[in-house]
Amino acid sequence: MAKISVIGLGNMGVPMAGNLVKQGHEVAGFDLVATNMGQAASRGVTGRKSAADAATDVDIVVTMLPAGKHVLEVYGAGMLKAAKPGTLFIDSSTIDVASARGAHKLAGDAKMLSLDAPVSGGVGGAEAATLTFMCGGSKDAFEKAKPILEAMGKKVVHCGDAGAGQAAKICNNMILGISMIGVSEAFVLAEKLGLSHQALFDVASTASGQCWSLTSYCPVPGPVPASPANNNYKPGFASALMLKDLKLAQEAAAAAGATTPMGAAAAQLYGLHNAWGEGGTDFSGIIHLIRGKSQ
Amino acid sequence: MAKISVIGLGNMGVPMAGNLVKQGHEVAGFDLVATNMGQAASRGVTGRKSAADAATDVDIVVTMLPAGKHVLEVYGAGMLKAAKPGTLFIDSSTIDVASARGAHKLAGDAKMLSLDAPVSGGVGGAEAATLTFMCGGSKDAFEKAKPILEAMGKKVVHCGDAGAGQAAKICNNMILGISMIGVSEAFVLAEKLGLSHQALFDVASTASGQCWSLTSYCPVPGPVPASPANNNYKPGFASALMLKDLKLAQEAAAAAGATTPMGAAAAQLYGLHNAWGEGGTDFSGIIHLIRGKSQ
Amino acid sequence: MAKISVIGLGNMGVPMAGNLVKQGHEVAGFDLVATNMGQAASRGVTGRKSAADAATDVDIVVTMLPAGKHVLEVYGAGMLKAAKPGTLFIDSSTIDVASARGAHKLAGDAKMLSLDAPVSGGVGGAEAATLTFMCGGSKDAFEKAKPILEAMGKKVVHCGDAGAGQAAKICNNMILGISMIGVSEAFVLAEKLGLSHQALFDVASTASGQCWSLTSYCPVPGPVPASPANNNYKPGFASALMLKDLKLAQEAAAAAGATTPMGAAAAQLYGLHNAWGEGGTDFSGIIHLIRGKSQ
Amino acid sequence: MAKISVIGLGNMGVPMAGNLVKQGHEVAGFDLVATNMGQAASRGVTGRKSAADAATDVDIVVTMLPAGKHVLEVYGAGMLKAAKPGTLFIDSSTIDVASARGAHKLAGDAKMLSLDAPVSGGVGGAEAATLTFMCGGSKDAFEKAKPILEAMGKKVVHCGDAGAGQAAKICNNMILGISMIGVSEAFVLAEKLGLSHQALFDVASTASGQCWSLTSYCPVPGPVPASPANNNYKPGFASALMLKDLKLAQEAAAAAGATTPMGAAAAQLYGLHNAWGEGGTDFSGIIHLIRGKSQ
Repeated sequence: MAKISVIGLGNMGVPMAGNLVKQGHEVAGFDLVATNMGQAASRGVTGRKSAADAATDVDIVVTMLPAGKHVLEVYGAGMLKAAKPGTLFIDSSTIDVASARGAHKLAGDAKMLSLDAPVSGGVGGAEAATLTFMCGGSKDAFEKAKPILEAMGKKVVHCGDAGAGQAAKICNNMILGISMIGVSEAFVLAEKLGLSHQALFDVASTASGQCWSLTSYCPVPGPVPASPANNNYKPGFASALMLKDLKLAQEAAAAAGATTPMGAAAAQLYGLHNAWGEGGTDFSGIIHLIRGKSQ
Repeated sequence: MAKISVIGLGNMGVPMAGNLVKQGHEVAGFDLVATNMGQAASRGVTGRKSAADAATDVDIVVTMLPAGKHVLEVYGAGMLKAAKPGTLFIDSSTIDVASARGAHKLAGDAKMLSLDAPVSGGVGGAEAATLTFMCGGSKDAFEKAKPILEAMGKKVVHCGDAGAGQAAKICNNMILGISMIGVSEAFVLAEKLGLSHQALFDVASTASGQCWSLTSYCPVPGPVPASPANNNYKPGFASALMLKDLKLAQEAAAAAGATTPMGAAAAQLYGLHNAWGEGGTDFSGIIHLIRGKSQ
Repeated sequence: MAKISVIGLGNMGVPMAGNLVKQGHEVAGFDLVATNMGQAASRGVTGRKSAADAATDVDIVVTMLPAGKHVLEVYGAGMLKAAKPGTLFIDSSTIDVASARGAHKLAGDAKMLSLDAPVSGGVGGAEAATLTFMCGGSKDAFEKAKPILEAMGKKVVHCGDAGAGQAAKICNNMILGISMIGVSEAFVLAEKLGLSHQALFDVASTASGQCWSLTSYCPVPGPVPASPANNNYKPGFASALMLKDLKLAQEAAAAAGATTPMGAAAAQLYGLHNAWGEGGTDFSGIIHLIRGKSQ
Repeated sequence: MAKISVIGLGNMGVPMAGNLVKQGHEVAGFDLVATNMGQAASRGVTGRKSAADAATDVDIVVTMLPAGKHVLEVYGAGMLKAAKPGTLFIDSSTIDVASARGAHKLAGDAKMLSLDAPVSGGVGGAEAATLTFMCGGSKDAFEKAKPILEAMGKKVVHCGDAGAGQAAKICNNMILGISMIGVSEAFVLAEKLGLSHQALFDVASTASGQCWSLTSYCPVPGPVPASPANNNYKPGFASALMLKDLKLAQEAAAAAGATTPMGAAAAQLYGLHNAWGEGGTDFSGIIHLIRGKSQ
């Protein structure tokens, strides 16, 4: 069993750390918020005084933080100095590709192993240990991380070198955001043309319009009983988080010189959805913005 | 066995008529172009002198024409007068919803049964009798048409009343056009970020980015061997036809008062793709417009 | 002085007819709505029983109707038959280019002169006789119409042959709709960046961002005292009418094979603005959609 | 007369420094590129060994650099330490708002005066001393800078506090980019509808479609003889620079939480224009992307 520290004990970090404890690992953690520390403690996570303290004398450090700047701050502060050479640093935050590569650089300069490993699956997947991890980094780092990540998720993919995990996640989520709006527009158009939700679903779900947004996460109630549309659009995956990921994709595209017109349009539509106060609803609730008041 | 006439003997009409012959039906047909008549004859289709002549003394008339105006012209001319009461008129053309409903009205006023039944599956599906038929019209018309359509396709769906078949097709194809551009943008972004095509495919095809455009019709060579990208983007489904369907969706949305921002953006991008001379390439070739010269 | 009939006596038709009376012309008119006939009578317009009756024994017929189908209905009914050869038919409705050309064709076949002459300037311009007329048709038709149009407006432009007036209007209004959203986005961005409305106005109004939407019709209160923003966004030019014109531009572009990505995006944004119940507010109120609830 | 140093002696910096010399100021300068130093010398600018050397014993330092990172590097290196307290630092680079505010912070912490003062007018304006300066910073900094800036331009506007100059420029240029595409689409639509360039210009230039992109910088040859369209779209203002400014606007909007759908669409269309190898042509050349091969 390994000695592991988790830094960032929020809605995701706590259940992830808890699953490591369940597997018999020796798990410590740190968070700036005392109540978060308390919730982690209730799952058997030993509290540490700081990120540097948490990185001392462990095999692996997992960070789960809000944005690139937080990750770079933690990596840039005493954490790397406090760790023993060869410690593996896994960043499971969803952040911009440039910052992810910056974190790898800091870790490499400090003679550490590093992996960017953002997740999909949300809080539910974190609790159930069914997350998907998209990983970027060296083969050595990936091989060392794999069994640990498998304790927290059901799918662990090595996407490539430093930053490839973040790249894979934003590319996937850009497709997701675009297709969800497309599916929502199709249902609204169907409503106006007198075509029933179920009839459109029956045709498109078995034809060329099939996509995860339609068949696993349908934005209208009925066809897919488990979708948030059947639960008053309670997330699920909040519109605010989809906007965050679409902005990360636009930021990466602008920096890399890629043109993504539909990705940009999707980011703007989720921007309007959030500007109108719907950031806390599920991202499939974008159908309300598209439909307007008329229904 | 039934007496059936097919009006419009082009790339789709000829194999569709041929499959009816194979099933033992007595099949006649008409087309304004003599060479088309010849190709139909070679499949056992009896030539008629006009649409009216073709509609005389048959049980079912199938029309397969380019656009709404052609369908309304044929329905408005002598065809309906020449038919015996209760003849079933199936229009398998892909046309605008308003014209489809106009054709139903003309047929109903003439005491005929009618069905709008556009197809998906293209020329390949027409030859292999694996088309999907999306049908709009009365239950009686649908029940009478079903066995005939099953001779030409493998899936026959009753979507609702007059026009519902056309509505279902344009809603499905609007999702398709949007998701294909989204997937293409994701691959181009991945290229710029140093993420391999296969790595993005491996992640997205089993995650929330999964869609038919990615997993059955992948716009980059490799991951899906059967996709047109592996055959130099030879259609398949031509960009010009996708543009036609996206314009039909926009026309229907404007008339019905539906807002479809992503559908409109997709129509514009396929408009640019066609304006730059790529109308004859497969619609997955849109990735070249997105990528630009840089690769 | 000429004998003139005005068909369509709504908010625009009545003051236009009234200005013709003021210039000493002998003016008759017809409208399906009795109260409209009454308002016209109060300005000295003689009532007629029908469009055909109104076209009998006059020199010029001016139509001011809601949409292309109404114009084609009136032209297709007895009106042209009732008129004496060489009568000039001026259609000042804002309609689609195809219908406008259809009306010219009907008039030409009946040996009449015809002109499409849509206006800009709104109800205020109609009352004040300061409308701009954008004209399409033969030189003869234009020369005969010019003095009559000058009695109702201050600017009369011959744009070209049949349909050119409608083409000019939708091209102009497409630029207007696009620039108004662009200016609104700039003000919202300025707000978020702590740049005052006046400072942005002072820079852009004298720089390369200058446009009519900014300097004559500013979408924020203050910089341009006469703009609707200073009158709680009371029209002015209603958002519903801008949406109508943007849809006409999209319809013409689709039919003619022109690609207009920004025009399409503007039509969609005004579509959302109307879908959310703001069709009756001035089109500069689009800034509220862009800004969201946050301010 | 003042002692002034100019750091960054490229196409803009050299003529700007030259105009200061012409006004009798004592002007020194520094650039990493030797040939740039030579060109500055030929206009009477004394060469310095480094940015720090250039900032020593002068009253004012003007920086003209490519991007935010370069400005922050120069400000963060020895330059501020080398200057005497109260030296005025004017940054005329066009950079992101966040970096501009960062530079003000560094200058303020070092007890210096600072101003962000990006320009419009291009190389021609720099040579002719007709630039417009959009300034952000304290009233003291602005008052001290004004006479110096007036030696290099004809218009100097105080837009607000730190960063307001950059904010004003990107807001203005976002309107410019949007309106230029809108005008280009209108001309392409007019072409397809058989409306002449001159007829559209005559209507729109005196109506609600009037904008600088149309009346001062018309994207088709003819109506405005001085516009780059008449000179084979030779810049002028290159498409690559418009893309840079539109990306800065998108970056600022994303950071500040503003939604700018048309600004985002414009950035994507200029992205395609550049991706297709047209970055070096004037930004009015976007009309070629919109028109396609068809003409």
